Amino acid sequence: MSSSSQVLSSQVWPAGISRGADGVVRVRDHDLRDLAGQFGTPVYVLDEVDFRARLTAWRDAFDQASGGTARVFYAGKAFLCTEVARWLRDAGVGLDVCTGGELEVAVRAGLDMSQVLMHGNNKSPAELAAAVGHGVGAIVVDSFEEIVRLAAIAEAAQVVQPVLVRVTVGVEAHTHEYIATAHEDQKFGFSLTGGLAMEAVRRILRLPALRLLGLHSHIGSQIFTTSGFEVAAHRITELLAQVSRELDATCEVVDLGGGMGIAYTELDAPQELQVVADRLLEIVRDECHAQGVPVPTVWVEPGRAIAGPPTMTVYEVGTVKPVELEDGTTRRYISVDGGMSDNIRPSLYGADYTCALVSRFSDAEDVSSRVVGKHCETGDVVVRSAMLPGDLTPGDLVAVAATGAYGRSMASNYNHVPRPPVVAVSEGTARVIVRRETVDDLLALDVT
Amino acid sequence: MSSSSQVLSSQVWPAGISRGADGVVRVRDHDLRDLAGQFGTPVYVLDEVDFRARLTAWRDAFDQASGGTARVFYAGKAFLCTEVARWLRDAGVGLDVCTGGELEVAVRAGLDMSQVLMHGNNKSPAELAAAVGHGVGAIVVDSFEEIVRLAAIAEAAQVVQPVLVRVTVGVEAHTHEYIATAHEDQKFGFSLTGGLAMEAVRRILRLPALRLLGLHSHIGSQIFTTSGFEVAAHRITELLAQVSRELDATCEVVDLGGGMGIAYTELDAPQELQVVADRLLEIVRDECHAQGVPVPTVWVEPGRAIAGPPTMTVYEVGTVKPVELEDGTTRRYISVDGGMSDNIRPSLYGADYTCALVSRFSDAEDVSSRVVGKHCETGDVVVRSAMLPGDLTPGDLVAVAATGAYGRSMASNYNHVPRPPVVAVSEGTARVIVRRETVDDLLALDVT
Repeated sequence: MSSSSQVLSSQVWPAGISRGADGVVRVRDHDLRDLAGQFGTPVYVLDEVDFRARLTAWRDAFDQASGGTARVFYAGKAFLCTEVARWLRDAGVGLDVCTGGELEVAVRAGLDMSQVLMHGNNKSPAELAAAVGHGVGAIVVDSFEEIVRLAAIAEAAQVVQPVLVRVTVGVEAHTHEYIATAHEDQKFGFSLTGGLAMEAVRRILRLPALRLLGLHSHIGSQIFTTSGFEVAAHRITELLAQVSRELDATCEVVDLGGGMGIAYTELDAPQELQVVADRLLEIVRDECHAQGVPVPTVWVEPGRAIAGPPTMTVYEVGTVKPVELEDGTTRRYISVDGGMSDNIRPSLYGADYTCALVSRFSDAEDVSSRVVGKHCETGDVVVRSAMLPGDLTPGDLVAVAATGAYGRSMASNYNHVPRPPVVAVSEGTARVIVRRETVDDLLALDVT
Repeated sequence: MSSSSQVLSSQVWPAGISRGADGVVRVRDHDLRDLAGQFGTPVYVLDEVDFRARLTAWRDAFDQASGGTARVFYAGKAFLCTEVARWLRDAGVGLDVCTGGELEVAVRAGLDMSQVLMHGNNKSPAELAAAVGHGVGAIVVDSFEEIVRLAAIAEAAQVVQPVLVRVTVGVEAHTHEYIATAHEDQKFGFSLTGGLAMEAVRRILRLPALRLLGLHSHIGSQIFTTSGFEVAAHRITELLAQVSRELDATCEVVDLGGGMGIAYTELDAPQELQVVADRLLEIVRDECHAQGVPVPTVWVEPGRAIAGPPTMTVYEVGTVKPVELEDGTTRRYISVDGGMSDNIRPSLYGADYTCALVSRFSDAEDVSSRVVGKHCETGDVVVRSAMLPGDLTPGDLVAVAATGAYGRSMASNYNHVPRPPVVAVSEGTARVIVRRETVDDLLALDVT
C-alpha cells in the first residue's frame, strides 16, 4: 500500500504526469530523475503539451461561446519567455504585456503586434513610445496624465492608437467571494463613481491621435465563480450605455481582464472552462440587451489559468529534521535546494501548494511535514503543510505542483542564488527554454 | 514655510544627506537630480561614507566593549557585491555568507577567507566543499546530516574545519518584544530541548576532521532591545557549562547572530550602538561567571544595521491620482517608476518606509499619499502611508529611505523590469558598484 501522497491528483498536477509501477513520476514519459540529472535541481518542468492545450482550450471555449468574435490575450506577467510567446502565435492567442521588457519579448518572438495589448498604471514615455512604434493592437490607458502623454506620442508618430479605458468598477473578487463597493482603494484605472471613467472617455474622444476601442475592467485574482464578473459587467455596460447616450460613441470591445483561479491544492475547485466562457459571454449579452446597447466583442486575459498548472518545480531534498513543538508533537522540516528565490508566493501571499515525492516508490506512512527552502530566513517556506512519506530522505526528489505562474516571473537572486531553468517537455523532447543562471551571470553586474 | 515632509530626520536618512535652501536634496554634495540624470531612475543611492563609518563603528564598539576580542561579521544577505566586500576588509570586519554565490563574492573580492563564516540550513555538498576548499574561518553546522557531510568533505580535503553549532535557544525576538519558549517551530539549528544541541556537539567532538569552535544563536530581526539576547545568552551559557562538564570541551566562541533593528520611520528607535555592544558583552560575561565557565570570544553578525540606513532609492513620479474612498475621503496615489521588483519588503512583510520629495522646494501642505509601483498588481506598494507635498507632480523625484538592506538583495525581474543600479557616493565621487540590468541581460537567459 502506497501512502496517499503518492496519488497525483489530475486537478493539481500537469496533464502529462504519471507515476509508474516503480513509483517514479514521469511527465510525457520523461523520468523526473533523468530530467533532474540532466538539467540539475531546482528545475521548473513545464509540460509543453499541457501549456499549448490550455492556450487552445481558452481560444476554443471563447470562440464557441461568442460565435468566433471573442479574443483571448495571455497575461505575460504570469510567465513569459521568447519560446512561450511563439506558442501564443501558434495557438492564435494574443499577448498582454505591461512593461517595455515584456513588450520586447513579443518583438523578439516576432509576434504580430496587432495581437499585443499593453497595460500598466505607470508606463514610462519610453514604454508608450515603444508600444506605439511597434503598433500594438491596444493600449489600456490608466490615468489622465497618460491620455495626454499617449496622444502626444501617437501624434508625433503620425498614427491613431487604439485604446481601452481601464475602469475601476468597484468589484474586488477572490476565490468564491467578491466585494462590491462604490469606490475602490487602488492604483489602477478610472473610477465609475464621480464620473472619472466617463471623463476619460470624453477626453479620448476629443483627441484625434487616439481611437476609443473599448472599456477594460479587472476584478481580482484566483477567482472561482463568475458572480463578481456579473456585477462588473453590469456596471461596465451601464457605462457603455452612457457613452452611447451622452457621447454618441460606440465601444467595440469590453475586456473583462483575468483572474480565473486554478487548483493549487485539492481544496481548490475551478469551474469548467466552457462553463466560464459561456457564462461570461451570456452576462455581457444580457446586460447589453438590458441597456439597449450593441453587444461588444469580449476580450479576456488569462495568465495563471494557462501558465500555472502545466509547470512544477522539482527540488532535491537536502536535510530532514524532526522538530519538537510546544504541544509535544513533532513537525518534520524538509529542506530543499531552492525556496523563496524561485517561488515567493508562499512567503508573499501565504499561498498553499501541493507537493509529492517523485523519484521513487514509498510505502511508508505519510508524515506531517513542512517543506522549506535554503535561504537564510525562517519565513522561507515552500509548502507550509504537506503530507509526505515517513521515509523521505536526502537525495529524494520532491516536486511542487502548479508553480508555473508567478514562480519564475517573480524569482529573485536572494542570497546570490541563481534562478533555475525552465525545461519544456513534450513526447520525445525536453529542452531548456529559459536557461539556468550562473553565479557569473550575477557577478557580471558587479562593477569592480 | 515648508511642509513637514521636507524635514529629513537623521534617524532615518543617510548620514550624508542635506536639503539645500533651494529645497533640493544632496548626498555628500551630490545633487540627487544630477545623480538621477546621470544614472537614471530608479536608482539605489548608497552613502559610502556612512556605510564605511557604520562598519568601523561596529568594529570599534565591540572592540571597546570586549577589550579587543569580539569580532564583527557583516551578514552579506542584507546586501553584497564585490566592492562592498572590499569595504569590509578595509574596516577589519568579517563576512557571513550563506550560499556558494555569496562565498564567490568573497573570493572575487580577495577577502582573507579566515574572516569569512558560512551559514545555511541546507548547504549543498558543493557549497560545503567550496567553503572548506577556500578555508573559511568557520562553518555554522545546522543538521546532523551536515555534520557527517562536512566531516567527510574536510577529511577528503585533509583539513580540520572549525565549526560553530547553530543552537535553537527558544527565543524569538522582534522590535521591543520577545517570546521565550522551550521549543521553536523553525528550520534552523539544533534545539536545546531534547538535548539535540548537546548531541551535535558530542558528534562533532568525535570527528577529527571538525574542530568545535563554539556555539551560535540567532534570535530574530529588527530588534530594539537586548532583553531577548539576555535569555538567549543565559541558555547558551548553560550549554557551554554542560559541554565543559560532560564532555570536557571548551567553546572559544559564542556567536550571538544579528537582528539589531534600524529606523525605517521616526517611530523606530534603535538603541545606541555602544550601549548594545557593552550590554551584549556584559550579558555573556555575567552568565559565564554565574555558570563558572571561561568567557568566550563574542561574535556578532549585523547586516541590516550596517547596510540599511546608508542607502535610499530614488524614483521618478509618473502619475498622481486622487482616489475617492468609501468614507468620502481621498487617497492620493503616487505612481513611481519602480516598485515591488526593487523593494519587496512592503508587500512581503507589510514594512513601513519613510519617503520625501527630493528634487525641489515645496511649500504646499502635505497630503496623505500612497506611493505605489508600476507593476501589474494592486499590492505593489512602495510606501503605504506617506505625507507628501500637495503639489507633487510627474517628473518630481521621490526618495525612499533605508532601503539598503533586503532591497537590491531580494530584487526580482517581475514584469521583466530590469533591476536598478547601486551608486556609491562619497565626497567628490559617485560611481556605480552594481550596474543597471538591461532587457538584453534578461533575455540572454531565453533559449530561442
